[in-house]
Amino acid sequence: MRDIILSVTKDLQKFVIKTPVLRFDIIDSLCNCNVFFKCENFQHTGSFKYRAAINAIKNMPVEFKQTGVITHSSGNFAHALARAAYELKIPCHLVMPNNTPNFKKSSVLSYTKNVIECESNLKAREFTTSEILKNKNLYFIHPSNNMDVIIGNSSCALEFIIDYPNLDFVFSPIGGGGLIAGTSIAINNFSEHCQVIGAEPSNVDDAYRSLISGKIEFNESTNTIADGLRTNLGSINFPIIQNYVNEILLVSEDEIMDSLDIIINKLKIVVEPSSAVVLAALIKNNKKFKNKNIGLIMCGGNIDFNSLKF
Amino acid sequence: MRDIILSVTKDLQKFVIKTPVLRFDIIDSLCNCNVFFKCENFQHTGSFKYRAAINAIKNMPVEFKQTGVITHSSGNFAHALARAAYELKIPCHLVMPNNTPNFKKSSVLSYTKNVIECESNLKAREFTTSEILKNKNLYFIHPSNNMDVIIGNSSCALEFIIDYPNLDFVFSPIGGGGLIAGTSIAINNFSEHCQVIGAEPSNVDDAYRSLISGKIEFNESTNTIADGLRTNLGSINFPIIQNYVNEILLVSEDEIMDSLDIIINKLKIVVEPSSAVVLAALIKNNKKFKNKNIGLIMCGGNIDFNSLKF
Repeated sequence: MRDIILSVTKDLQKFVIKTPVLRFDIIDSLCNCNVFFKCENFQHTGSFKYRAAINAIKNMPVEFKQTGVITHSSGNFAHALARAAYELKIPCHLVMPNNTPNFKKSSVLSYTKNVIECESNLKAREFTTSEILKNKNLYFIHPSNNMDVIIGNSSCALEFIIDYPNLDFVFSPIGGGGLIAGTSIAINNFSEHCQVIGAEPSNVDDAYRSLISGKIEFNESTNTIADGLRTNLGSINFPIIQNYVNEILLVSEDEIMDSLDIIINKLKIVVEPSSAVVLAALIKNNKKFKNKNIGLIMCGGNIDFNSLKF
Repeated sequence: MRDIILSVTKDLQKFVIKTPVLRFDIIDSLCNCNVFFKCENFQHTGSFKYRAAINAIKNMPVEFKQTGVITHSSGNFAHALARAAYELKIPCHLVMPNNTPNFKKSSVLSYTKNVIECESNLKAREFTTSEILKNKNLYFIHPSNNMDVIIGNSSCALEFIIDYPNLDFVFSPIGGGGLIAGTSIAINNFSEHCQVIGAEPSNVDDAYRSLISGKIEFNESTNTIADGLRTNLGSINFPIIQNYVNEILLVSEDEIMDSLDIIINKLKIVVEPSSAVVLAALIKNNKKFKNKNIGLIMCGGNIDFNSLKF
């Protein structure tokens, strides 16, 4: 696995941004530790998903290269796959909920016109995708529960731990589990002491409950402002998380909003609420991490300011 | 001057953030040059003014150390001076217009309670300040037209040119002229070939007209979204600008807004409109700077999202 992660990360160098790591005195003081922000909000298409999209397309079976790829996503993976496919000259089809915000739709439309709308729920997305797959010879790429996606994601943590080998903990948010799976594989393979901590909104705590029960649990609602984390944990990601993630910390909606406010209005970087979840988890549990070197993955920066009030 | 700038920059290291320099592929592609963003929006109090405030207080006459400092400012210098004085344990008085936005007032009030409100015009600010100075033995620090302020500001450009000696041009916005004066002194002393370009909103083009006429010109209105640049050019800054600034480029309000939109929504960093003015000037004149190494000073990041629509 070590060699695969190294080789994928090297291959991705031509396509992805090696995102900067930023430090902020006020966060170090607030949390009593040394905090390093890995800024995937500065990645192409504004999120880490671009790493996954490029890697999945590069590894797709050759027989689909003419006909193209398809995914269902309302957000960052749709945007990432559309641009990655555009850059790699592969046709791209997207199934998107009909209530996708306009700013997200327009980002996607600049790369592909093959956008199919459906009702806004997972069943409708999956059904619409499978209907299209019956008629078109397309390669389906799941936004998080796919090994090429996971390995693509791992390139972010590899860059991070190579440049900052003294990190004691890396915090990653958990939605479908693709980012934390990739992160924990990389950290586990390239650091002897660094541990991986998951951060999840209490309102969609499926991963937290799954770790306790030992089987994948489901969310009854998706009522969180962290729109990137509403997806349920995937079957490929879950065993990786069971093996390599040390702990999952939960945060409330208020804690997410408070951290989002700090990041945007004090740190002056634009992140989406899913990124704020990891800072919220650190602030809430800062005593436990006193004087440690903490890496926080800012997973994305796609936020609609017009719909947000601080 | 070289030694003074070096020694001030060294002295300031304990107090200010050596702000990061960020690069963005999409800007390089858009402008056909290599663009380096010096992010003073990440500075303490969210703007370069903190460098000036610290340096001015450190160099104040000893007889005022018990009684304190005073300035008039509605924005970043008030915030910077309040925090710098707080850190250096000097009393601080601020004269602020009565229409200063609440988010700016509250930033200041966490460091000093000595805030005196006045009408929102320069005459009222100066009159109120002079009335206070009649009764109180305070040291007045002008937000831009003061040599310690200018030298404090120069530390930003020195950090920039030392780390990026291949810069061909550094762009700085112009309001009162304190930032570009400090920038141009540093660049002139520490680079043989790098040139300094000013960027100014067309609606408050006093510095542009002053360079042409050879005397300080005034603005008839302050009608620009770039609130940090509404101040008129200062008498100490003007001769420095005449000597060391190669050109001033003007941009419209729409061009400022378009650049602000790009910086916040594509680059994912939070800047205020005054910072967007320099990117607007580069985008507008990009043919002239083809393949060059361009440094853009992002002067500050204090923006009220609640009052802004993209």
